[in-house]
Amino acid sequence: MKMGKNVDMLIDDIVAARLKGASPVAIRTAEAILADTEAEFDSGTSRGHLKMTVQRLGAEVIKSRPTNTSLRNAVKNTLYKIEKIDDEDDEKVLEVIRGNVAAFTETVNTAADRIAKLGANIIRDGTTILTGSYSSMVKGILDTAYNVLGKDIQVYVTETRPRYQGVKMVRELLNLGIPTTLIVDSSARHLMKDVDLVIIGADTVSSDGSAISKIGASLIALAAHEARVPLYVATPTFKFSEETLSGVMIAIEEAAASQIVDGSGLEDCMDNPLFKVRNPAFDATPPEYIRGLITELYIMSPYSVGDYLAKMSGVID
Amino acid sequence: MKMGKNVDMLIDDIVAARLKGASPVAIRTAEAILADTEAEFDSGTSRGHLKMTVQRLGAEVIKSRPTNTSLRNAVKNTLYKIEKIDDEDDEKVLEVIRGNVAAFTETVNTAADRIAKLGANIIRDGTTILTGSYSSMVKGILDTAYNVLGKDIQVYVTETRPRYQGVKMVRELLNLGIPTTLIVDSSARHLMKDVDLVIIGADTVSSDGSAISKIGASLIALAAHEARVPLYVATPTFKFSEETLSGVMIAIEEAAASQIVDGSGLEDCMDNPLFKVRNPAFDATPPEYIRGLITELYIMSPYSVGDYLAKMSGVID
Amino acid sequence: MKMGKNVDMLIDDIVAARLKGASPVAIRTAEAILADTEAEFDSGTSRGHLKMTVQRLGAEVIKSRPTNTSLRNAVKNTLYKIEKIDDEDDEKVLEVIRGNVAAFTETVNTAADRIAKLGANIIRDGTTILTGSYSSMVKGILDTAYNVLGKDIQVYVTETRPRYQGVKMVRELLNLGIPTTLIVDSSARHLMKDVDLVIIGADTVSSDGSAISKIGASLIALAAHEARVPLYVATPTFKFSEETLSGVMIAIEEAAASQIVDGSGLEDCMDNPLFKVRNPAFDATPPEYIRGLITELYIMSPYSVGDYLAKMSGVID
Amino acid sequence: MKMGKNVDMLIDDIVAARLKGASPVAIRTAEAILADTEAEFDSGTSRGHLKMTVQRLGAEVIKSRPTNTSLRNAVKNTLYKIEKIDDEDDEKVLEVIRGNVAAFTETVNTAADRIAKLGANIIRDGTTILTGSYSSMVKGILDTAYNVLGKDIQVYVTETRPRYQGVKMVRELLNLGIPTTLIVDSSARHLMKDVDLVIIGADTVSSDGSAISKIGASLIALAAHEARVPLYVATPTFKFSEETLSGVMIAIEEAAASQIVDGSGLEDCMDNPLFKVRNPAFDATPPEYIRGLITELYIMSPYSVGDYLAKMSGVID
Amino acid sequence: MKMGKNVDMLIDDIVAARLKGASPVAIRTAEAILADTEAEFDSGTSRGHLKMTVQRLGAEVIKSRPTNTSLRNAVKNTLYKIEKIDDEDDEKVLEVIRGNVAAFTETVNTAADRIAKLGANIIRDGTTILTGSYSSMVKGILDTAYNVLGKDIQVYVTETRPRYQGVKMVRELLNLGIPTTLIVDSSARHLMKDVDLVIIGADTVSSDGSAISKIGASLIALAAHEARVPLYVATPTFKFSEETLSGVMIAIEEAAASQIVDGSGLEDCMDNPLFKVRNPAFDATPPEYIRGLITELYIMSPYSVGDYLAKMSGVID
Amino acid sequence: MKMGKNVDMLIDDIVAARLKGASPVAIRTAEAILADTEAEFDSGTSRGHLKMTVQRLGAEVIKSRPTNTSLRNAVKNTLYKIEKIDDEDDEKVLEVIRGNVAAFTETVNTAADRIAKLGANIIRDGTTILTGSYSSMVKGILDTAYNVLGKDIQVYVTETRPRYQGVKMVRELLNLGIPTTLIVDSSARHLMKDVDLVIIGADTVSSDGSAISKIGASLIALAAHEARVPLYVATPTFKFSEETLSGVMIAIEEAAASQIVDGSGLEDCMDNPLFKVRNPAFDATPPEYIRGLITELYIMSPYSVGDYLAKMSGVID
Repeated sequence: MKMGKNVDMLIDDIVAARLKGASPVAIRTAEAILADTEAEFDSGTSRGHLKMTVQRLGAEVIKSRPTNTSLRNAVKNTLYKIEKIDDEDDEKVLEVIRGNVAAFTETVNTAADRIAKLGANIIRDGTTILTGSYSSMVKGILDTAYNVLGKDIQVYVTETRPRYQGVKMVRELLNLGIPTTLIVDSSARHLMKDVDLVIIGADTVSSDGSAISKIGASLIALAAHEARVPLYVATPTFKFSEETLSGVMIAIEEAAASQIVDGSGLEDCMDNPLFKVRNPAFDATPPEYIRGLITELYIMSPYSVGDYLAKMSGVID
Repeated sequence: MKMGKNVDMLIDDIVAARLKGASPVAIRTAEAILADTEAEFDSGTSRGHLKMTVQRLGAEVIKSRPTNTSLRNAVKNTLYKIEKIDDEDDEKVLEVIRGNVAAFTETVNTAADRIAKLGANIIRDGTTILTGSYSSMVKGILDTAYNVLGKDIQVYVTETRPRYQGVKMVRELLNLGIPTTLIVDSSARHLMKDVDLVIIGADTVSSDGSAISKIGASLIALAAHEARVPLYVATPTFKFSEETLSGVMIAIEEAAASQIVDGSGLEDCMDNPLFKVRNPAFDATPPEYIRGLITELYIMSPYSVGDYLAKMSGVID
Repeated sequence: MKMGKNVDMLIDDIVAARLKGASPVAIRTAEAILADTEAEFDSGTSRGHLKMTVQRLGAEVIKSRPTNTSLRNAVKNTLYKIEKIDDEDDEKVLEVIRGNVAAFTETVNTAADRIAKLGANIIRDGTTILTGSYSSMVKGILDTAYNVLGKDIQVYVTETRPRYQGVKMVRELLNLGIPTTLIVDSSARHLMKDVDLVIIGADTVSSDGSAISKIGASLIALAAHEARVPLYVATPTFKFSEETLSGVMIAIEEAAASQIVDGSGLEDCMDNPLFKVRNPAFDATPPEYIRGLITELYIMSPYSVGDYLAKMSGVID
Repeated sequence: MKMGKNVDMLIDDIVAARLKGASPVAIRTAEAILADTEAEFDSGTSRGHLKMTVQRLGAEVIKSRPTNTSLRNAVKNTLYKIEKIDDEDDEKVLEVIRGNVAAFTETVNTAADRIAKLGANIIRDGTTILTGSYSSMVKGILDTAYNVLGKDIQVYVTETRPRYQGVKMVRELLNLGIPTTLIVDSSARHLMKDVDLVIIGADTVSSDGSAISKIGASLIALAAHEARVPLYVATPTFKFSEETLSGVMIAIEEAAASQIVDGSGLEDCMDNPLFKVRNPAFDATPPEYIRGLITELYIMSPYSVGDYLAKMSGVID
Repeated sequence: MKMGKNVDMLIDDIVAARLKGASPVAIRTAEAILADTEAEFDSGTSRGHLKMTVQRLGAEVIKSRPTNTSLRNAVKNTLYKIEKIDDEDDEKVLEVIRGNVAAFTETVNTAADRIAKLGANIIRDGTTILTGSYSSMVKGILDTAYNVLGKDIQVYVTETRPRYQGVKMVRELLNLGIPTTLIVDSSARHLMKDVDLVIIGADTVSSDGSAISKIGASLIALAAHEARVPLYVATPTFKFSEETLSGVMIAIEEAAASQIVDGSGLEDCMDNPLFKVRNPAFDATPPEYIRGLITELYIMSPYSVGDYLAKMSGVID
Repeated sequence: MKMGKNVDMLIDDIVAARLKGASPVAIRTAEAILADTEAEFDSGTSRGHLKMTVQRLGAEVIKSRPTNTSLRNAVKNTLYKIEKIDDEDDEKVLEVIRGNVAAFTETVNTAADRIAKLGANIIRDGTTILTGSYSSMVKGILDTAYNVLGKDIQVYVTETRPRYQGVKMVRELLNLGIPTTLIVDSSARHLMKDVDLVIIGADTVSSDGSAISKIGASLIALAAHEARVPLYVATPTFKFSEETLSGVMIAIEEAAASQIVDGSGLEDCMDNPLFKVRNPAFDATPPEYIRGLITELYIMSPYSVGDYLAKMSGVID
């Protein structure tokens, strides 16, 4: 055992991509650290040094996936305020971590429900909503608006090439009984005149209020902005990226060329040195195109993300 | 024979979609009317009424595809100024039509070359150009810039779902030896920061300077406008739509849902009454997003299209 | 007789405001000059100097109301090309003026019809149109769209304080059987979300494409522009102001304070030196807020007005 | 007695519109709840249940006018923190409510003064200020700037059809000795070039920073924004709407058609099924058109309203 | 003699920068070609080939300074329509050239006067005008407005680093008795709130309506656009660049680093490989920032330049 | 001794401009007050009145330079929370002031380091950065990015007429080994296409998020905004101006005309009554042109400045 049994398994699962999704990662991380802390405490191995041991554990977890915001936030929330505890007071350390984990998992577990409720409030009766890609948060909002509040809505979904997460979204919305229209990504501007509201999900939110979402989101946002259609981003606060507070820029990864080329008829060009493929997996929607962030707390201005993060990190009171 | 042998065949070919592309349609139309006019003249059937007969012929051709701008312009150019000829002067009518057809086919045939030359002038050395869909005009410009003028360029092409005309464009540019990068439609905004210039084609240009192009063009234009990347539309003037001069709005057709649904995994939903597909084939790029129209005459401001059409139609001198 | 019987009466009527409306002023002006020219020719008084006499006549008419564009254009069109006639060829002068007046009155008389037809083309079925003030041109367009073409439209009209010309418009549209909604001027922005199209009239159009209309028009235009609702200005070309071509700025008159104060309950403040009233009768809508000018010729870009005027005035060919 | 004597009377007065204005409503509400709480305590009727009884009282008051922000905020502030008191500790409940009411009425009473002082600071010597409708907050600012600080200002006021609250404003400003100019609503854009600063009041402020004011305010704001004239909204924080924090959208009421039609000459059309009137009483000025909110605390960014409300409601610390 | 005596001397003078300014270059060019054509005709050397000889002459002149628009336009105007003359009709060739040169020098000589008159019309009484660099056209306008029309104006002039042409402008305006304020280039935005109108000169105007002026003009234009202060460009039409009609882009030259470094205290850094200087001599003001071009013909929309050039070059009628 | 020995000397030094720079002023101020407080305490002169005496001291210091934000903030931070101490508890007063001064000087001393680190994070490898004037904060950021983090950067610096602070910046950047390009102020727009990032310093930051910097900064910001190049302002929070929270507007001083005229060749015009010079020393960059403030705490949204100040001043919790 390198770190702790549970944390080791967690890291393995994350690296092997057996564990995905912001909420599952967050909860498993918090629980793994707690379990290993309890084991460490019970074993008495690091008697009088539990605090330091556990902090090292947290740092290791972050190191395994330094750009995973949910994981980073789970560690941060688990270790919240333990640095103020006396170095040798193992009982207190354990108690605080238990409390933190309980509070944090509660937050994660209820975030989706809260977001669904708050987001559904925004939707007026008779609204046509456009969304892109797949987002469980957006799905929850639409479900609540249509099936709980009985609002008359219809939904446009962009297919989201190259990985067609929008097609999955269409399928699930139809399963929820919601009238749903499939469109290609590039028709978002032409059809925006029929749309009243845009709601999208996010993978990460930067401290300047930019939302990093699946590729195409910022283009939808631009078209909505041009047409003065309000756009909201549904995101729990544990997707806010603390490191951006210090100016660290979020890197946009590019995925495999094969996602685009396979089936295109250009497979034979892959060896042609003149031929290239650019396949960014995400793009960034700037705060000036976002009317509000639908969080589990309240409908937040994108310009408040920096202050929120600064407060959570203790940079300001 | 209903109309005239050649015109009948032309209409059949157009209706059956055996004849496509703005230039082929334009030239075949002009030639068919000329051939039937000559036959009519030779047969002597409408002695002293050739002018009227021919004008009716033209009207019929337009009626077969009222929204086809190239066809409409071919008829207009063929019959140019014959209304001023004495009603019974068959020889003069024939002579004028012959002259018109010769001049018009010359225009159509040389338009691509002229556009390639003018468009290539716009491109500076070391430029990255983005285009979407397939356009022989744009291809000609890029070919001239790269292979004739030896400018160092690279080209980004959006794949243009659902019909992937961009993939065809990529293939042909690679065949011309031009460094070409394939991207998905929805990454146009994210990648615009690497682009210096956008050139797209058009199916029709409206009198207010809007360009009607394959779906997604206006979204690219919007992203270019946001990033202050200049956008040009390569189009011969015979794609300018005269009827829009009188306020007639161009209707944007929607193509079959199957273009999007086939292969998506949602085929089984086609019977679900909750499920819809919107598949607009074109969209309109407004003049404020167009730096210039690359025509066979000169780089024209989009705000000049109305005046040009008014002059060509005799509405103003 | 100072000038000529008919011109004297015309000037009297204009100064006394017995003659109003762009078209009536234009036609009466052209006819008066022609009548006096004919009288002068018949009397033989200015034998061999008819041309000079008539030109002086025209200059006097303009002087009586130097800012009235319709009157100015009527004079200009009446005297069109007579400066090229030999100074002593009285017959030719008369002949040319007769021709000019015939052509011009024909233009004025048919302009409304042409504008109604072109404007009605712009309107799609199911459109909500907003207009302000009273304009016979706009009324003609709406009448043609609704009653001739059978398009399903509804019209919002702003009341147009302080003189309530919008109320007159509502009354006449109801008389035409058109569904009409009255709103206060200040609700134009709030209600713009329910509007598809704005059409307004103009008193004058400047060479830079600005439209001078009754007060409030530019505010409606601004709200339409913000909401991306297209705005058209219905105006015959004889309202284009040639003097602006030389940089002369159109002055916006302010009307009497009493138009606003009477009935307001502030009548007693009129003597209070602290109290002022500003009552501009017109405002200017800049070309960037105008999609097109619906003229009797074609749907013209506002950026074409300068060229049109330059051509008409012989500044360019 | 259904609720409590004072609360019953309060509700009656509100429903009958005998009580109006944000501040009077807020203070009367707080006082009525306190009075009934004291009576309840004295009577001993709900011994050991005072807390629950009073909370029910508060809920009833809100229910009587669910969209009245001042009333809602008064209840909230009155009951502030009592949920943390032991359920049976009646004395403590009463004590806390007394304290809350004292603090809240103090806030309301001093808000106008504070706003007048802060707002007057913004005004430079020699400024022309435009305002619309009637606002005691704006009046206080102008009075302080002119009469207390001796700044040389002049004020333009839009009359604010259909209810002419601007005329009342003109009258009261003249009474304060301030040079005041009356203008019609629709001339705001034309005259904006003579204006240095716009200050308006608000009925409610939404958590996204939108200000809900009397109809026409958002049109003035748009014209100010276009002309880059800074606009401030004078509003105490007790007009901030907490419910919008959860995404609830503020509904804009439409007032009676008669307000517009009476005296217009269209009274006879009221039965005409083709004739409609739209009479929205308010409109919403979006945060991007607001330079700052002049509150009793400080000049607040409109983007801070959400955070302020979240903190006040205990959603965040 | 390589070309012709006069043309040789002309080229020498231009290359040695002994001849500067658009008008002097244009007139000397036209006159030199005429003189050499006359000499050639008199000498009889190229009997029957005068036309071809002269055309070669023109081409050589252009080659000496291919980017000098005035020179290019002078050649073009001098040789206007001679290609239609019979190849061997030397007399006709000479006659046409004589006529062209007379007309063109007349145009150039009167352009400044016409521009002064038209530009002065734009200026209202009591206007503060901002300009940059030195422009004889702008100077003429201000002189006419102030000294001929007696308008009350004051002028702000940016100094125009590094060559301080603005200082020369200040000196000459003071000599004309005009109240003039000197400002540094970088204060243009801060002081724009005191400015009513901007008028600048141009070195060249592109077919898309961009004005190429001394460095800093486009920054002034941007600040004017932001503040909604109208900007006009004073330019005779012979500065319009015909080659841009075919898409040729105007290259912006960079001047010597010493213009900036000399006297700066950084002279010793000139050998430091880390140290660079960028010194663009011109920049381009895009048409959307230009309200109008004050030409010798009329106040032209920048969007009309392409059409004007196309007509002058015979590309369109 | 009027105030206290140290404070007297401080005021003398500030008034005589022997003490400059935000950080030195701030630290000297805090230290001087502390020293005089200690002396007062030791002397026992104001036994039992130390608190009041010290508060008067602070007020006097502020009065000596009421617009100096750093000085004002130093006093505020030094006296932080002493008003809550019992009036007669001299020991406590001294203790609190000591703590405050220690904390504040620590903040000031480490601010530059923190800002350098945070700012360097924003810079990606291969970035071209533009700055203007001289700012030690910006210099620290560039030094850290280039020399500590080893990022490949190059820097453009505007010379910043009339006082050429940019030249000083160039010199110091070259000394740090950073590739640096000098440009004139007016070429900022033309060269912005080669720039990826703008970082500038500030003298003061207003509560609405505006940055007051050396003249020309707002023009650079405007050009960056137009080109969508992100702009950051590097500023410690002790430059935030608390008084603006209450609406007080920051006055922009104008410096001596001689700064511009000396050496211009216009020295002889100084007596000419027609000749004026405007020489504003600063300008204000509005928050909508600022992506973020690089403070010692975190990268802050400009819209957060008001909240931060309100919290620091105790206006809100």
